[in-house]
Amino acid sequence: MRIDVHFGATGLVPADLQGRVVVVIDVLRASTTIATALANGAKAIIPVESSEEVVTRSKAFERGGVLLVGERKMLAIPGFDLGNSPDEFVREIVEGKTVIMTTTNGTPAVTAAGGARDVVIASYVNFSAVLTMLRVALRGGTDIAILCAGRERQFSLEDAACAGRYVHHVAKRLQGVDMNDAAVAATLIERRYGDNLIKMFEASSHGRALKEAGFAADLEACARVDSYPVIPVYQDRQITKLGPDRER
Amino acid sequence: MRIDVHFGATGLVPADLQGRVVVVIDVLRASTTIATALANGAKAIIPVESSEEVVTRSKAFERGGVLLVGERKMLAIPGFDLGNSPDEFVREIVEGKTVIMTTTNGTPAVTAAGGARDVVIASYVNFSAVLTMLRVALRGGTDIAILCAGRERQFSLEDAACAGRYVHHVAKRLQGVDMNDAAVAATLIERRYGDNLIKMFEASSHGRALKEAGFAADLEACARVDSYPVIPVYQDRQITKLGPDRER
Repeated sequence: MRIDVHFGATGLVPADLQGRVVVVIDVLRASTTIATALANGAKAIIPVESSEEVVTRSKAFERGGVLLVGERKMLAIPGFDLGNSPDEFVREIVEGKTVIMTTTNGTPAVTAAGGARDVVIASYVNFSAVLTMLRVALRGGTDIAILCAGRERQFSLEDAACAGRYVHHVAKRLQGVDMNDAAVAATLIERRYGDNLIKMFEASSHGRALKEAGFAADLEACARVDSYPVIPVYQDRQITKLGPDRER
Repeated sequence: MRIDVHFGATGLVPADLQGRVVVVIDVLRASTTIATALANGAKAIIPVESSEEVVTRSKAFERGGVLLVGERKMLAIPGFDLGNSPDEFVREIVEGKTVIMTTTNGTPAVTAAGGARDVVIASYVNFSAVLTMLRVALRGGTDIAILCAGRERQFSLEDAACAGRYVHHVAKRLQGVDMNDAAVAATLIERRYGDNLIKMFEASSHGRALKEAGFAADLEACARVDSYPVIPVYQDRQITKLGPDRER
């Protein structure tokens, strides 16, 4: 049994993901936004690389059935329906819609993980739901890789801390779980902040930048542990909710 | 004033290093070996990418004036004079010699840092000597970048812990030092282990692998804080000792 953490997609090789459940974490804010959107009834989220691709892909849908979503340098893309603030994704707006989404860090990480057998999107708001899935996977003999999206190719504190929370909770119940050095480090970061996520966001460069850009409310939203207990899985190039409500 | 940490050379951009003092750390074992060799009188160390290049470059020297040094998969390269065990680099063997060296992680990191103004090689054995240099640089208005070599493109605990020791000691004396998220994380890792470096090496995958391969004595050597107070600087494609003994 192994649980490995990767602090970024740069330098990943296929063997790092092959045959594993891969957990993609972009706490600020794509992972949180995705969980929020699915919990509030979005049909599917299609992550794409560029704003041009969002526009192109949206043309295959009826205008009323699709939402154009994107973020660059923390701000919503002009002309799009929504930015990357989780609380914008309320039921009244997202229910029944397909969300086509591009973000600076989160969507590249999701597509980088595309080669893996199972890809799940995790954050604090859906922490325990995903944790249950990981425990089931490990007991069934499947190894886990946690991919932190990071920020513009750099290590980010909040993704590492969230990864560490998973490693900590998985390892404390199971004996003999092997892990890489990044997983050990992630647990040390998690231990420092524990449940004080706002304090951790204040120590993070991305957290501080969001606050300065007027997104302090987003930090509060991203810190609401288990507020949206969904398991978002990425398959066939779209993210849908695993479970009884899943539409296929 | 900034001190930033990078957990690997992959993904580095020139702006990350430009105009800075760059500290390269490969605790297990290249940084430690380099400090040991210079402290014991080696004239210079020439880091190169491949074992073939070691042989080629050595031909420009008299056979008695040069040492061929290299490591692959932790072991000495067959036919070479020395491997990568610090304690092999005793005065009787290295004094007055030019060392041409290739290692899996350390030498690529040194050459990756080659574009920076000042490149210094750091480890625990020369911790305080390099720390003094960094304090002088910061007071003079020069920012610092610490580049952890890592292990085969992956994050390594021991390099992050050593980086964290530098960040901690620099930041505790100076007010208003900005740092990136990796620097914050490195200090948390450092804080966990403190002076118990052997315990930290036992938590590191590279440390455990070295022990299993019969190199437990190397771990002891790499944990001897300040045993070789030299400042190895990389300039003109070779590493020499900064200070009154420096030969140019």
